[in-house]
Amino acid sequence: MKTILLLGAGRSSGSLIQYLLKNAGDKQFTLRIGDKEKHFAEDKINGNSSGVALQFDIENEQQRSDEINKADLVISLLPPALHFLVAKECLRFGKNLVTASYVSKEILSLHEEAIEKNLLFLNECGLDPGIDHMSAMEIILKLKKQGATITSFCSYTGGLIAPESIDNPWGYKFTWNPRNVILAGQGTAKYIQSGKYHYLPYHRLFSESVRIIVEGVGKFDGYANRDSLAYRHHYGIENIPTLIRGTLRQEGFCSAWQVFVTLGLTDDSFVVENSDQLSYRQFTEAFIPPSVMGSDLEEKIAHYCKIDPDGPSMERIRSTGILEEKPVGLKNASPAQILQQLLEKKWVLKEGDKDMIVMQHQFEYTLGGIRKKLVSSLVVKGDDQTDTAMAKTVGLPLGIAAIKILEGKFSVKGVQIPVHEEIFKPIIEELQEMGIRFVESED
Amino acid sequence: MKTILLLGAGRSSGSLIQYLLKNAGDKQFTLRIGDKEKHFAEDKINGNSSGVALQFDIENEQQRSDEINKADLVISLLPPALHFLVAKECLRFGKNLVTASYVSKEILSLHEEAIEKNLLFLNECGLDPGIDHMSAMEIILKLKKQGATITSFCSYTGGLIAPESIDNPWGYKFTWNPRNVILAGQGTAKYIQSGKYHYLPYHRLFSESVRIIVEGVGKFDGYANRDSLAYRHHYGIENIPTLIRGTLRQEGFCSAWQVFVTLGLTDDSFVVENSDQLSYRQFTEAFIPPSVMGSDLEEKIAHYCKIDPDGPSMERIRSTGILEEKPVGLKNASPAQILQQLLEKKWVLKEGDKDMIVMQHQFEYTLGGIRKKLVSSLVVKGDDQTDTAMAKTVGLPLGIAAIKILEGKFSVKGVQIPVHEEIFKPIIEELQEMGIRFVESED
Repeated sequence: MKTILLLGAGRSSGSLIQYLLKNAGDKQFTLRIGDKEKHFAEDKINGNSSGVALQFDIENEQQRSDEINKADLVISLLPPALHFLVAKECLRFGKNLVTASYVSKEILSLHEEAIEKNLLFLNECGLDPGIDHMSAMEIILKLKKQGATITSFCSYTGGLIAPESIDNPWGYKFTWNPRNVILAGQGTAKYIQSGKYHYLPYHRLFSESVRIIVEGVGKFDGYANRDSLAYRHHYGIENIPTLIRGTLRQEGFCSAWQVFVTLGLTDDSFVVENSDQLSYRQFTEAFIPPSVMGSDLEEKIAHYCKIDPDGPSMERIRSTGILEEKPVGLKNASPAQILQQLLEKKWVLKEGDKDMIVMQHQFEYTLGGIRKKLVSSLVVKGDDQTDTAMAKTVGLPLGIAAIKILEGKFSVKGVQIPVHEEIFKPIIEELQEMGIRFVESED
Repeated sequence: MKTILLLGAGRSSGSLIQYLLKNAGDKQFTLRIGDKEKHFAEDKINGNSSGVALQFDIENEQQRSDEINKADLVISLLPPALHFLVAKECLRFGKNLVTASYVSKEILSLHEEAIEKNLLFLNECGLDPGIDHMSAMEIILKLKKQGATITSFCSYTGGLIAPESIDNPWGYKFTWNPRNVILAGQGTAKYIQSGKYHYLPYHRLFSESVRIIVEGVGKFDGYANRDSLAYRHHYGIENIPTLIRGTLRQEGFCSAWQVFVTLGLTDDSFVVENSDQLSYRQFTEAFIPPSVMGSDLEEKIAHYCKIDPDGPSMERIRSTGILEEKPVGLKNASPAQILQQLLEKKWVLKEGDKDMIVMQHQFEYTLGGIRKKLVSSLVVKGDDQTDTAMAKTVGLPLGIAAIKILEGKFSVKGVQIPVHEEIFKPIIEELQEMGIRFVESED
């Protein structure tokens, strides 16, 4: 009997835990689930005899060592900054590790030692990063095998809500960390297009979104992610002339969000004076320079941000309540914190709401002198509150990878991401069986 | 015989050293000047028997203790981050300290101990901060004594070049740290106007400059500094409805600089790919999104940044060379570093060029029910390469304060800035005798 140790039983862990418990008998392992809140683990195990819930504190050295030592493989769903603590113990006791997080410099520094100890530390094995790598690499390898030259790869992913659950003009609700949504894109977006590097500062990011159409689910805005360039190396397409990675939102979201950015409402670097004594309208007004003309705040915003005062962006802005005379009621808050608190009230999932993951890869390539296009799209909707699209697409790749590693199916060792065919092929196949499948169209 | 220890003999120290040496005989002190480059100190002492040049290394603990212990008062012109090292030794050996730098949290933490030891650590005693505090406080106290209610205080300072030395369309050359000029304004400017707080994000800062007219020297752009609000407390005008502090540039500078900001050329947070292989024109092109229309780069910039392609801002941009096909030749550089290197070549002081300091305080107040205005302006031009306007206005207040402290003229103790009448009054009087005087106009 082997043991998988899962650290973290938060809201995206449901699908992963169900998948592992379902396979525990057949694959002969026990699943130990540790969380600061033991009941999160208990609730999800729900009496299944293959699962053991633990009150687990990562800062408790003794418990950390004991539990990792007992396991054959560790899956860490802890906050990314804590993975290194886990990884060092895995190295010490010779245990494999799987995460859905980006490879940090610290984790990467363990690569050689992991190889020496014949261990696999597989990271970026969730949705984005995760399924994006695997599905992109599958196409890239297929095209390369055909002898094609890939000239362009644009890839967009969005954690959204299903069209049937849309009931606000943004077409958006929080299905993951709201703070990350508020601060999304801060920094400068880097990408390459037609052989030329482009740098797009945050203050213009949402005004330069592109239209993305996904068969069956509609039109989206895609805005560029911070660093598209590193993927050339990860995917072995160092000389590709065009590479852009981006994030999807419902059509119209980006123009309206740009208004928040232009005003400065997403700024998290300073505290608004007397924030608890302001109304939302007063708060917003503070970001309009006194010189801006207009008979009311709406007109001033329209003028300052160059939008139609009666258009859809203004309708979206208005729908958030940020122009209302209601109290902010938040002390010593940054603009971003005030905006977040407001949107968390407005963009909350209701009972029965379904989330939706959309991913689209757009390839251009030449084969036999002919220019071709290939579009591969994934749409996953949530089943219910546990098996959300987010939980399934983050958790199932992790679960599949964990069992394959337990079975000794992967030969690659060290600190890795799932860009190796021996890793991504079986994972994609099993995801397809579970209904997580891309649809390709060519022209 | 007393001893003043001056740490740092860089380019702004000339006027201070001359002032101190001139007074050393009369006031009976020796001036010891320590610098990493001993010859900087030697050159400025120029054989005067009251001065001693030292090869001085602040990181050398022994030397630091020995020299500070020997002195009666220390003036630190070291980089601000090093003042704390000096201040701790001053506390240990019971020595007074004068700097021209902002009070850091570390320095402030020494306030109580300094009072206990009957020491004065006088900071912010140069130009800005320094003369700005003193001249503002003189007017504020005068108005308060008259029974006036101050309703508005807007204050602008610029380290510029004299009109007769202008030979580029920006009307600007570097007279102090170029890096600070390139990065100036990053963050969010906070100020209060008509009782309402305003927040202006960096990406709009230079498009919201105001016109400042200074009798005799012309028209300027004033853009808001990062934090105007703290001055309400420093100046004892907590309830003032309008308080704005800003920086002066020649008229037209700000609209053109806004183009650099909009494009992202002042960004210091990432490295430009292959920066050493690019021309300046290619570098600039990388900041124009591919979707922007225009037959050439100039047209695209004009369109993207909403400026006249044949107007004065474009002329200023063009004059920097940033649209030319000349090589950047700088490896792994950030946009800000590339821009800085270019402008350091173009905005360099020539032999005989004179710098100029301009400061203007604009007060509005009511007295006996009547609304009044008071404008107080300072214009200081450099005499030569040593007695630049910057060196005089930074160095002389430091020197005057140092001698007054040596003579025991100030009763206030602890960590202070020159907002106390007993401090600023004699300093302003002596500055006036040396030709550094404000001109007031009322209406």
